[in-house]
Amino acid sequence: MGEKSAVRPGGRSARVQRAVHEAVQALDEEVPRDKLTVPQVAERAGVTPSTIYRRWGNLKELLADVAAERLQPDAPVADTGSLESDLMAWAGVYMEEMRSTPGQQMLADTLGSASTEQRQRCLQAQQDQLRLILSRAEARGETPLPTVEALLDGIMAPLTYRLSYAPQTLSKACLERWVAATLR
Amino acid sequence: MGEKSAVRPGGRSARVQRAVHEAVQALDEEVPRDKLTVPQVAERAGVTPSTIYRRWGNLKELLADVAAERLQPDAPVADTGSLESDLMAWAGVYMEEMRSTPGQQMLADTLGSASTEQRQRCLQAQQDQLRLILSRAEARGETPLPTVEALLDGIMAPLTYRLSYAPQTLSKACLERWVAATLR
Repeated sequence: MGEKSAVRPGGRSARVQRAVHEAVQALDEEVPRDKLTVPQVAERAGVTPSTIYRRWGNLKELLADVAAERLQPDAPVADTGSLESDLMAWAGVYMEEMRSTPGQQMLADTLGSASTEQRQRCLQAQQDQLRLILSRAEARGETPLPTVEALLDGIMAPLTYRLSYAPQTLSKACLERWVAATLR
Repeated sequence: MGEKSAVRPGGRSARVQRAVHEAVQALDEEVPRDKLTVPQVAERAGVTPSTIYRRWGNLKELLADVAAERLQPDAPVADTGSLESDLMAWAGVYMEEMRSTPGQQMLADTLGSASTEQRQRCLQAQQDQLRLILSRAEARGETPLPTVEALLDGIMAPLTYRLSYAPQTLSKACLERWVAATLR
């Protein structure tokens, strides 16, 4: 697994990774999840099954890697003019995406991985986004500013908990309550 | 899956369930997780693989069921004399258990399930325990009392989030901060 962090963009290893990720995403739309196998993914990607086993260990860890990759933000965080509204916008987009059927599957794939490696990538991305939101608030002169840790514990944690345990109870009002309490 | 809630204790279905759960737990100590298969579990439990597929669908959902079962509290919540110390004791036990290697595996199995069924069982158990803690506080005359929902969002959520994303950052000081903030 250590190999992954040393992947050279455009190199052979990166091309294999991209082909395998694309094969998983394509098959995910065609094959019920519990019928998906490593040999199927390998055939679609044009690699040998042993390439996949060597690089990812097993199907579950491959799925977690694909999910963590897809969970990386693909748009910059919106600048809406205030810390409170930036946090609401950011958490609102995440809530909507993760409540969807593919979002619930991505979350389960990432949280179900036996190692914390994929989750650490997601956490890193969340921390980076929150740092950007806080730096904009600082530039606007907003004060006092919460820490990244307080934002994760106070907003992202209950959001993630409910996404896993009780997604039907989530609403914009929940987010408003958590954001207000964390900024208080 | 609906069959499960109608399992008659001591009936044939309950005996099959117990045998399969015990087989999973025994094999989990002998076989690396990614080598575990349904036919292996079936052989150890003395049932056919199709019994397992019919009842649980696939290995992942069987593992989530076993994990959710093991996550059910096996000791009554301690009565330590105050709401704050009851919450600290309750959350402290959960943190210690879930930071362990088997705890991390159980959490990943439960959170990785494609359906929310197993997580709802865990949530139900957590709500029941918190209701008991709150009813004792009420009997002691402690006031004002938080809601079960506020305790889950304020304490259980950041605890679970960090157990998944950054277990090494957890400490008793985190729990103290979350309990104090939620009771404030």
